[in-house]
Amino acid sequence: MMNLYEIADFLKKNDNYEILTHAYPDGDTLGSGFALCLALQQLGKNARVITTNVPSKFRYLLNGVREQEFTAQTIVSVDVATDSLLGSNMGKYSGKTDICIDHHGSNTFTAKQKFVDKYAAAACEIIYKLLLRMDVKIDGNIAACLYTGISTDTGCFRYSNTTSETMRVAASLMEMGCNNVYINKVMFETKSKQKVQLEHAVYNTMEYCANGRCAIIYTTLEMLGKLDIGDDEMEGLASIPRQIEGVLLGITMREKEGRFFKISVRTNDSINASDFCTHFGGGGHPAAAGCTIKGDLETVKKQLIKAAEEFI
Amino acid sequence: MMNLYEIADFLKKNDNYEILTHAYPDGDTLGSGFALCLALQQLGKNARVITTNVPSKFRYLLNGVREQEFTAQTIVSVDVATDSLLGSNMGKYSGKTDICIDHHGSNTFTAKQKFVDKYAAAACEIIYKLLLRMDVKIDGNIAACLYTGISTDTGCFRYSNTTSETMRVAASLMEMGCNNVYINKVMFETKSKQKVQLEHAVYNTMEYCANGRCAIIYTTLEMLGKLDIGDDEMEGLASIPRQIEGVLLGITMREKEGRFFKISVRTNDSINASDFCTHFGGGGHPAAAGCTIKGDLETVKKQLIKAAEEFI
Repeated sequence: MMNLYEIADFLKKNDNYEILTHAYPDGDTLGSGFALCLALQQLGKNARVITTNVPSKFRYLLNGVREQEFTAQTIVSVDVATDSLLGSNMGKYSGKTDICIDHHGSNTFTAKQKFVDKYAAAACEIIYKLLLRMDVKIDGNIAACLYTGISTDTGCFRYSNTTSETMRVAASLMEMGCNNVYINKVMFETKSKQKVQLEHAVYNTMEYCANGRCAIIYTTLEMLGKLDIGDDEMEGLASIPRQIEGVLLGITMREKEGRFFKISVRTNDSINASDFCTHFGGGGHPAAAGCTIKGDLETVKKQLIKAAEEFI
Repeated sequence: MMNLYEIADFLKKNDNYEILTHAYPDGDTLGSGFALCLALQQLGKNARVITTNVPSKFRYLLNGVREQEFTAQTIVSVDVATDSLLGSNMGKYSGKTDICIDHHGSNTFTAKQKFVDKYAAAACEIIYKLLLRMDVKIDGNIAACLYTGISTDTGCFRYSNTTSETMRVAASLMEMGCNNVYINKVMFETKSKQKVQLEHAVYNTMEYCANGRCAIIYTTLEMLGKLDIGDDEMEGLASIPRQIEGVLLGITMREKEGRFFKISVRTNDSINASDFCTHFGGGGHPAAAGCTIKGDLETVKKQLIKAAEEFI
């Protein structure tokens, strides 16, 4: 593994960069990508970000980025934990990365060199430290990219990955002009009309079991069809049942094409979400896990309720 | 106005403290009160916090606080902007405060000495700096009190009052053992079953006007009666309509006893909430204001829709 000074040296010596981000891009991979792109362009390099797409709410991350014509020579990946996470860019780029920069402890991405710091709350926290070592001037545009990744990956400084260092990096980015109020408003205080309708429809499906210690919600293909809603509006749904006072096990069922359900499980206290999902051939983390169950709505729900009542 | 060193000296020289907090207590007034109480007790003083009540989710703020028998000699107020905000304690304590510590620029509280810093995101940010100057050791219990006030008054570091200094104070409190993950979970990720039902009922009332640029929701006495819900469950409702993409003017109507409605207005961009409420004899801040309108649901709603369509 290279250290940050070695990566800074490498990036200053080479040129013509393509920066890879992960599919279904979030604030951290895009913020890391565009911050690094802006930094390299500031140093007089050619650079572009490779993405599957940039959701509209993230368009401001492109402020100041210049489109440049060049043949790529150096490939850097940011926040990409596995090769398959390149999505539709996998065919073209798999195995070609020179330097992988990431904060997922589980990183298995194929690259010549790596820097993985699982203590960092976000890849953007690493990029911030890298840019300082590259003697880049972090202006308002770069600061906005980095703040976006840190804020979104920590749920606005709420999640347990937030460290005192995270807070201090964010403080510095605010002083560098990141427009934090705008960013947090867009990321955390704005919902589309469809999202509001979807949440409302989902609340209608809420069912408690295990004496109120388990709550289950679901979406069906019919519901999504009626609301004309895309997959990117589904984020955040899984956290709804666990937020309810007294609920230890929150289950979200999402019907998929082919008569099966994707199940997301979120837990509180000592209830292990991963253990629960193991019953159904799934797994994950202690507080957030998932699995897949075949069958129709009522059958799958009955199975989950039975399992929940035995488990708690 | 005294400076923080003078207040620190005063507090170290005197004894037998009562610390006043404001009615309908929030995380900042309680966090400030119990942090200062713990600090004074650590210095060998007698101290107690005077509150109208402590909502159950804030009970952890009392960790480490000892109940002491003494006759009060010195009165300090924290986060109390006006005399009337003492609520049911006004009769006993009004006009008796030695030192008022606050962060509301509009402070008119009656006290012999004051320290008001409107640049501070929370009164707890001021108390943090005061305790350092009193040479108090900020342990985990004190840090939890101070972090609670800062986190709740900034909407978890989201609102425009959050400064880089706020972030750095929070970073230090995390290092002092404030248990930030637990605090943010309780404050921002936990809803009672009644609150979930209320939100759901309120979504059912949502109506758009002015081409989707205004959204109106309401609660009626009948709805609250059915759900058996208290006034403290109403917080946060007013922010629901403004969160919707494209909505510039979010209006929340709450029916009160006596055939009238309390109206809360929240706005985005250049729409002035206070100007809107002036039409109805109310007022407030540019992005958050309120007023009172007499009449039944349909009449009041029609008036608001008409005013909104003219205003936008």
